[in-house]
Amino acid sequence: MSENSLNSVGIVAPQTAHFSEPLTLKNGEVLPQFDLVYETYGTLNASKSNAVLICHALSGNHHAAGKYAETDKNAGWWDNLIGPNKALDTNKFFVIGLNNLAGCHGSSGPSSINPESKKPYGASFPIVTVEDWVNSQARLLDYLGIKTLAAVIGGSLGGMQALQWTIAYPDRVKHALVIASAPNLTAQNMAFNEVARQAIITDPEFYEGDYYAHSAVPRRGLRIARMLGHITYLSDDAMGEKFGRKVKDKIKYSFDVEFEMESYLRYQGDKFAGEFDANTYLRMTRALDYYDPALEFGGDLTAALSKVKAQFLVVSFTSDWRFSPDRSREIVKALLDNELTVSYAEVTALHGHDAFLMPDAHYHTILRSYLQKIEIQ
Amino acid sequence: MSENSLNSVGIVAPQTAHFSEPLTLKNGEVLPQFDLVYETYGTLNASKSNAVLICHALSGNHHAAGKYAETDKNAGWWDNLIGPNKALDTNKFFVIGLNNLAGCHGSSGPSSINPESKKPYGASFPIVTVEDWVNSQARLLDYLGIKTLAAVIGGSLGGMQALQWTIAYPDRVKHALVIASAPNLTAQNMAFNEVARQAIITDPEFYEGDYYAHSAVPRRGLRIARMLGHITYLSDDAMGEKFGRKVKDKIKYSFDVEFEMESYLRYQGDKFAGEFDANTYLRMTRALDYYDPALEFGGDLTAALSKVKAQFLVVSFTSDWRFSPDRSREIVKALLDNELTVSYAEVTALHGHDAFLMPDAHYHTILRSYLQKIEIQ
Repeated sequence: MSENSLNSVGIVAPQTAHFSEPLTLKNGEVLPQFDLVYETYGTLNASKSNAVLICHALSGNHHAAGKYAETDKNAGWWDNLIGPNKALDTNKFFVIGLNNLAGCHGSSGPSSINPESKKPYGASFPIVTVEDWVNSQARLLDYLGIKTLAAVIGGSLGGMQALQWTIAYPDRVKHALVIASAPNLTAQNMAFNEVARQAIITDPEFYEGDYYAHSAVPRRGLRIARMLGHITYLSDDAMGEKFGRKVKDKIKYSFDVEFEMESYLRYQGDKFAGEFDANTYLRMTRALDYYDPALEFGGDLTAALSKVKAQFLVVSFTSDWRFSPDRSREIVKALLDNELTVSYAEVTALHGHDAFLMPDAHYHTILRSYLQKIEIQ
Repeated sequence: MSENSLNSVGIVAPQTAHFSEPLTLKNGEVLPQFDLVYETYGTLNASKSNAVLICHALSGNHHAAGKYAETDKNAGWWDNLIGPNKALDTNKFFVIGLNNLAGCHGSSGPSSINPESKKPYGASFPIVTVEDWVNSQARLLDYLGIKTLAAVIGGSLGGMQALQWTIAYPDRVKHALVIASAPNLTAQNMAFNEVARQAIITDPEFYEGDYYAHSAVPRRGLRIARMLGHITYLSDDAMGEKFGRKVKDKIKYSFDVEFEMESYLRYQGDKFAGEFDANTYLRMTRALDYYDPALEFGGDLTAALSKVKAQFLVVSFTSDWRFSPDRSREIVKALLDNELTVSYAEVTALHGHDAFLMPDAHYHTILRSYLQKIEIQ
């Protein structure tokens, strides 16, 4: 048994919380009822003060740690971080992972059945925002009887949710860990999202989002979107080191796979297109696009964060060109302007944006030592 | 009349050269006959020693300068550079622009009629390489009676051709101007090409490249490819300055155009998809992928350039993340290792890879002064 499996949270099972009270969304629409699927690891203490919420990124879900069966090949997506004696120690914390609204892993989303129509929501599922997610997550905490989070943690789009928690619910979160994130997207970030969405939307099997009714799947578009995504998750250097110009077999002068990198991208694209829901992908990218807490403060992030009370750990990675260290520094500066307690680490890493998911020793030591110092009353 | 139109080469007309002697390609195939369409500006001197060849990039063609009619809205793609008293002065030089083999603007390519079958070549048109282009360009020089080029000039993929000229025909080229180029693609460069190709190839209207026979056009795929291309042509900063997070009208919470950048990308994609041939696009990206003169020298670019005799001007742009200055420096180093005469300029520019097409004063001054110093015998 490896050290990792010794430190595993073990066999876990997802649970579903049903919410029958309507949720008003940022776009004005009202979701009359919704489900959130979630998992928990560790034990909630008597004072319910040791909860840590994990916010997932674009393609993540509630299954952050452990396995569903001993025979499962893969553990949850952040299993290298979460477990007994791991950096996010489940001996100390009660860790909650959930699938966000509009997801495709059990929470209400475009591919789930609308209880009113008894058909998949499809295109009718609202376009949700980071703010909506955080509001729905607050409902989940209410449901679990948790008033205050010891910490909220997320990478990338998950980091935006962690930041938004401190803005929307300043009294309900003690610490926010914002990793490989940004206070909004750049034009280039949004441009990549737009190309991905257009690949999906113009796929003839998209049927304006109601492909379920046509027994169709816009696999081609979703595959292209994912291939493109993978380019932005890896740094130029990491791609160079991993694949370089390595030829798969021998050059055939064809449009088939010639280089190893092509094989990797096609594999990732095919795999994702067989698993993920295109309508969810569209909504996740829009949530990224729209998030901009400074907007209603005339672009002044410091003003946007003026009511924040949480303490922060902000982490960025040197080779992350999707959400570069500069973007994390913008958050740090705005927090410091507000005289908040902030730790900031710029981790030297080769792996680009993906580094936030990797078990890099230096990175995990930073998270471990920050989380160890959090006092639970 | 603007200064620019005063310095115009005026009304031009393309010409076609037919080659009936077979051309053996790098992949082993033989093209039994082919056409090259070209334009010339200025006058070839008596000793035929003042010719400058323009090599085009991915989506370029032979129409580098001037207009076809006074009423034409746009001039040739490098009109800001080429003309009487311009940086590439047609009072001094005889400038030749051509459309490369596999192009879609008149030279033999997938969309042109195969004289043997009387049908479009389609998928049967060979996958050509930078080396093949240079060999076909040498045929064009023979046809025009030109033994030696005063200079060969190109940006991006055009720069690779300029470099290849000096390797393949060391005695036929006096000066090479290699701009915003690289000695081969990085894994990331190739990854973007692969996503673009896959968007085209998986378009249901691609019909394995024989869409002409089906009266179809893989517009969706070509549109995605072009949108993606435009992200890589502009720097992150240029996109930020040009579009930032500017909203087109007001946020509608939809997948329609919300941000100005989205409008720009869709416009560029739609325009290109209505004009360009998808099979050509596939071949241009493959030519980029395959070019790697150091490969047969065990990756040693210095060895690959050991027979070069030309003098060089190498230019890169600080914000070019597609072909970064580092890649130009690799070329410069290998040339210097061979004790060749090299000038190198790293131009501070905001516009990313696209800068090579822009009339930046500093950049054009560098080209002008280099070209002025070229002695014509």
